[in-house]
Amino acid sequence: MDKTSAIGDMPDKEFREYGYRIVDKIADYFKEMENLPVLSQNEPNDLKSKLPPSAPDQGEEFAEVLKDMDDLIIPALSHWNHPNFHGLFSTSTSSVGVFGEMFIAAFDQKAMLWRTSPASTELEEVTLNWLRELMGLPEQFSGLIYDTASVSTMHAIAAARERKGLRIREDGMSGRDDLPLLRVYGSDQTHSSIEKSLITLGLGQRSMCAVKTNDRYSIDVDELRASIERDISNGFEPLCVVATIGTTSTASSDDLQAIAEICEANDIWLHVDMAYAGSAMILPELQHFMDGIESADSVVTNPHKWLFTPFDLSVLYMKDMEILRKAFSLVPEYLKVAEDVTNQMDYGIQLGRRFRSLKLWFVIRYFGADGLRSRIREHIRLAKLFASWVEESERFQLSADVDFALVCFRAVPERVEDLNSFNETLMNEINREGGAYLSHTKLDDQIVLRLSVGSIRAEERHLIKTWKLLNAKLEELCDK
Amino acid sequence: MDKTSAIGDMPDKEFREYGYRIVDKIADYFKEMENLPVLSQNEPNDLKSKLPPSAPDQGEEFAEVLKDMDDLIIPALSHWNHPNFHGLFSTSTSSVGVFGEMFIAAFDQKAMLWRTSPASTELEEVTLNWLRELMGLPEQFSGLIYDTASVSTMHAIAAARERKGLRIREDGMSGRDDLPLLRVYGSDQTHSSIEKSLITLGLGQRSMCAVKTNDRYSIDVDELRASIERDISNGFEPLCVVATIGTTSTASSDDLQAIAEICEANDIWLHVDMAYAGSAMILPELQHFMDGIESADSVVTNPHKWLFTPFDLSVLYMKDMEILRKAFSLVPEYLKVAEDVTNQMDYGIQLGRRFRSLKLWFVIRYFGADGLRSRIREHIRLAKLFASWVEESERFQLSADVDFALVCFRAVPERVEDLNSFNETLMNEINREGGAYLSHTKLDDQIVLRLSVGSIRAEERHLIKTWKLLNAKLEELCDK
Repeated sequence: MDKTSAIGDMPDKEFREYGYRIVDKIADYFKEMENLPVLSQNEPNDLKSKLPPSAPDQGEEFAEVLKDMDDLIIPALSHWNHPNFHGLFSTSTSSVGVFGEMFIAAFDQKAMLWRTSPASTELEEVTLNWLRELMGLPEQFSGLIYDTASVSTMHAIAAARERKGLRIREDGMSGRDDLPLLRVYGSDQTHSSIEKSLITLGLGQRSMCAVKTNDRYSIDVDELRASIERDISNGFEPLCVVATIGTTSTASSDDLQAIAEICEANDIWLHVDMAYAGSAMILPELQHFMDGIESADSVVTNPHKWLFTPFDLSVLYMKDMEILRKAFSLVPEYLKVAEDVTNQMDYGIQLGRRFRSLKLWFVIRYFGADGLRSRIREHIRLAKLFASWVEESERFQLSADVDFALVCFRAVPERVEDLNSFNETLMNEINREGGAYLSHTKLDDQIVLRLSVGSIRAEERHLIKTWKLLNAKLEELCDK
Repeated sequence: MDKTSAIGDMPDKEFREYGYRIVDKIADYFKEMENLPVLSQNEPNDLKSKLPPSAPDQGEEFAEVLKDMDDLIIPALSHWNHPNFHGLFSTSTSSVGVFGEMFIAAFDQKAMLWRTSPASTELEEVTLNWLRELMGLPEQFSGLIYDTASVSTMHAIAAARERKGLRIREDGMSGRDDLPLLRVYGSDQTHSSIEKSLITLGLGQRSMCAVKTNDRYSIDVDELRASIERDISNGFEPLCVVATIGTTSTASSDDLQAIAEICEANDIWLHVDMAYAGSAMILPELQHFMDGIESADSVVTNPHKWLFTPFDLSVLYMKDMEILRKAFSLVPEYLKVAEDVTNQMDYGIQLGRRFRSLKLWFVIRYFGADGLRSRIREHIRLAKLFASWVEESERFQLSADVDFALVCFRAVPERVEDLNSFNETLMNEINREGGAYLSHTKLDDQIVLRLSVGSIRAEERHLIKTWKLLNAKLEELCDK
């Protein structure tokens, strides 16, 4: 094809040939990833400096692009799917998740209106009903897919703002003197996305009340109650409480039942953030963490975190979707239709929506509920196994309970004065060498290492490898 | 594999085999799409009622899923890639766009920090520099990818809010009496996402000032100036003016130069919405629409609209990215790193970001600048050709100028009293029968049909087909 003068797309034959090659490349990548450094070994600008500053005038053979994938792009990747990626939360795609994205890209749906994608609109409803049932969420909840938990959460708090009846949608908050200070409560372990949502929504950081946590990193319920009472007596208006099941630092959980009672007593919106641990709620033996969930107004869970679904796919479950519609619906003339149907554009800031449910539907069907449960259980088993090694060791100690698949621990070698600095060095060295990737957090001024298990490729031998790396590096550092 | 008890992913061999099959299915879909009805012929709930209400316990063979793709999903699709999809804006993916999404899914990057994806962080910068140069945007602009124009725009207005120095990030807008009413200006043709952004950001609909347009559907610049003066004398605070190049209704454009002068004189943030027409700015002969762009503070363009890149990929260009960082950066302990690099999570509400630049990079390299230009030029040629048929016909008339690849027109058959109702019926019948998909808008109380050309598969014969369908249906309706 003379691409520069022609119209149209890549010829069919070429599409098939390159398509097969890419399938093979991805299969090879999945198979050989284990031998790659987990974090990219690139220095800043290494990739950028190797790329031309301007677009090519003439189209290139796609084989050229594929060559650069090997030579330039793959070395610049940090391999999130790697079984030794233990940082932040360990997430991974599954093969069928990739298949989902292939179709999603090819169909290129924009599910703004039902009619512009009946498939996406209806499959999303069905798949989220499946997931709700698997998670043991009450039937009153219905779901909607957004890109990320940050955006799901922002919508939840916007819905809370709408329910307050303060005409903020219509009249806004500037140029008014009749609005009390609106307050949103979480704990000092609440995810930063809550505060970012408040910034975005115009409520500001002053609206955030971060209640202290107890020694299990759960919100201090008495302190929460006292904060709300103090605010009310100051003339402030409690808007929302965010309870977390599976915090990011330590995967700790708040006492949902106790928080729910406070919210009911004060008519406060209850949002439950289980972006991470929501996936684990498909295990009946863990659903007790959700005791009290029937009182919640909104719940966030991210299948892209721990349900083998490629990024991005975050789910917001709401008890009353109508509030979200009231908060966001705006229908210009060119989007007016006669059908009496759900048009998903009415429920949020984004007008177009990708056909994201397809990949989650693939995942649930291919693995089945039992297959998903067995994988999540195995990750939790591996995390607890790792935690048992930490507990048995005199050189490391556990820093928090292991309820899900995150282990918080630190090195405590003898004769080291500055343990924070030691742990940071230990982590940085391991990360730099590429054998595993760990992240850190700070608990009571102590630097603590975080090891998350979540890759579909994680096996016991990978945890053994990380444990050996930690011990070897600790010895090396102590010997210096 | 006994999926229910096993751990791990689909076996390598199975992944390759199904992968090839999916490549073939997608190739077949692209080839045979022309014979499918453009809009899904499904009735509401047709798909939902055929799907089981609960997830399967046991995993299924992927062949079962593929069978359902043919039997259930494809009939429920509206085919956005179809060359006769002329509704809203005609968008389409290219083959290499699909390849991009395959790798994006497989790599599953979350580009929150540079280190969690040097590839995504740096390729985004390089690719957006390429695009900026192709579009003839001044060098001072740097870009960032978001999912949709709605979200890009919200970030632009949030940046304007931050620059005002009113401590809205820190103190919010509730519980204060020191904030003037903040006002954002657009025209009555401005996209609904602007108003949705104001709702989201807590500014509310009252902040929106929709200035009337002239007979070319461009903002009435004198009226804009007068509105701003009136607001200032009322003690309101002008925050931002949104100028549009290529509105959604008619693809009309505002007089950017004149608006820029007003913004400079009053120190108002100038945001330019070219979500649609930005792609056409790669044609030097159209860059005059951007005269005055050097005064803009932010610009939105959506390569997923008209640059053959699968949904979603929207670009926000900003003159001063640092304001966005000030507006949004919030770094919890577990995301603190030592490197002095760009961490993209600092520039918006979303923490994780998909490796979206990869698909745009594929598109630009495969087609080359010349190949992209020739395709956009051809679409504009086809739209103008269609417009010439309308102009020559006595049964139809043109309703707006054709600057890009959108034709606004209406049927004006003799002896029909209610032309609005006639045009609606005409459109609905054509859409229902599936041969083509048109949308509508309302101009001066007239229902007007919109025909957009943008699919990479669009050829002259497809426009001829739509024109014939319109004439035949008009005759049929007149004969009734």
